[in-house]
Amino acid sequence: MDKKKPAPKRRVKEKPVILITNDDGVTAPGIRNLVEAVKDLGKVVVVAPDRPQSGMGHAITIGSPLRLHSVKVFDGVEAWSCSGTPVDCVKIAVDKVLHRKPDICLSGINHGANHSINVIYSGTMSAAIEASIENIPSIGFSLLDLSMEADFSAARTYARRIVESVLATKPDRHLCLNVNIPKVTEELIRGIRVCRQAYAKYEEDFKERIDPAGRKYYWLTGEFVNSDKGKDTDVWALENQYVSVVPVQFDLTSHERLERMRKTYKW
Amino acid sequence: MDKKKPAPKRRVKEKPVILITNDDGVTAPGIRNLVEAVKDLGKVVVVAPDRPQSGMGHAITIGSPLRLHSVKVFDGVEAWSCSGTPVDCVKIAVDKVLHRKPDICLSGINHGANHSINVIYSGTMSAAIEASIENIPSIGFSLLDLSMEADFSAARTYARRIVESVLATKPDRHLCLNVNIPKVTEELIRGIRVCRQAYAKYEEDFKERIDPAGRKYYWLTGEFVNSDKGKDTDVWALENQYVSVVPVQFDLTSHERLERMRKTYKW
Repeated sequence: MDKKKPAPKRRVKEKPVILITNDDGVTAPGIRNLVEAVKDLGKVVVVAPDRPQSGMGHAITIGSPLRLHSVKVFDGVEAWSCSGTPVDCVKIAVDKVLHRKPDICLSGINHGANHSINVIYSGTMSAAIEASIENIPSIGFSLLDLSMEADFSAARTYARRIVESVLATKPDRHLCLNVNIPKVTEELIRGIRVCRQAYAKYEEDFKERIDPAGRKYYWLTGEFVNSDKGKDTDVWALENQYVSVVPVQFDLTSHERLERMRKTYKW
Repeated sequence: MDKKKPAPKRRVKEKPVILITNDDGVTAPGIRNLVEAVKDLGKVVVVAPDRPQSGMGHAITIGSPLRLHSVKVFDGVEAWSCSGTPVDCVKIAVDKVLHRKPDICLSGINHGANHSINVIYSGTMSAAIEASIENIPSIGFSLLDLSMEADFSAARTYARRIVESVLATKPDRHLCLNVNIPKVTEELIRGIRVCRQAYAKYEEDFKERIDPAGRKYYWLTGEFVNSDKGKDTDVWALENQYVSVVPVQFDLTSHERLERMRKTYKW
């Protein structure tokens, strides 16, 4: 049913094709660090947004066309900038750049956290989720440091370690991992924890401003509220200096509500 | 933990506050039909995008501010247009229009299907999911007809019936329903089915064009591929003239992969 050429079975020693994207844009330090961390593990090709696309979630571009430009940003690595969203980047990379599915898709390293409910707003993670929908195992990486001058050295070490171990197994084609790295130096990181997404959310607090013409406008801000005290969550792991790894799915069905609903509503 | 004023306990006969949004924009026929279908069931307030926002998924507006304008579009119903995404509309409605949580949030009626994997790209459904994250029960409605001249009469009947039954129960605060209505006349509809999301996806097929300056650009198109033959899916229900109802969740953790992962990867 899948018409796009799948990733071929690799022979021993044949290098995997690694697609890399992000949501901070093709020139962001985070993606440069990810490319450097894994570029000797396979044939790396970058297709990333031509500008920041944070908070774009699983948006795709409908009603306007996309541009795709070859760019020289990474030493010895084929790279393209795309005018679309992170999800668009994955779609166009498979169809118009690679002309096949890559063996794995990596997204990031994001400048800022994508744990708990952030996964749903995140362009970084939506690109990874899109890959997993398309039968491409994927991993999104995020460092808990928003700064453009962030120190990515620990994140690089762990990104490489996780990519190596996933490539060494035969990952299921829908595997999608949400990896967050705490903002501490490498020697303080206590290891890797496989977790569930913490139940947390934002309490909105829009800031009102007045423009020079006297009209109101609003900035989205919010307070992060974590009401989930479980020690098996990504938020707990990160607060305790672990790298968190959450396996993510694209089936949004609430299976536990299905039966309850059939009893509650007599339709 | 939830600082925003929650929906107060309603006394008998007190009308519920119903927030309505969509992704086709505040002037689309679909939202007008939804307002008409339910406006006597409560105090309806509309906060919807000022232009089409299809395919926006769970995008939020970061890095630029939002505008909010009072509009006279619906007879006797308070309505606001917002310059942001459908998810932004829910957030700003709670914080700056209602100043409390509504009793329920409705989204749609979307012009076009949001079954199966479409739920993840859909602005209509992302608005509903956002409400459920914020402890507001929600329902998204979609009619399987893209036309602006679509006949919404069956969709109206079923939307009203479903909203009435949800309001008549005490829905859990994270309830989020994805309702799709087949494109047939009302008498041909065989009833309502509670379903799971079909495993289906799109095979991308970008169409290349050349602009007047000789440069390439690409239109996203794709073929819908359903490899899920289950009779418990939304796609099956719709193909068999049922209204499909899928309970949707915002926990993206793949719980069934958690244990397997801990065994596979020795981190």
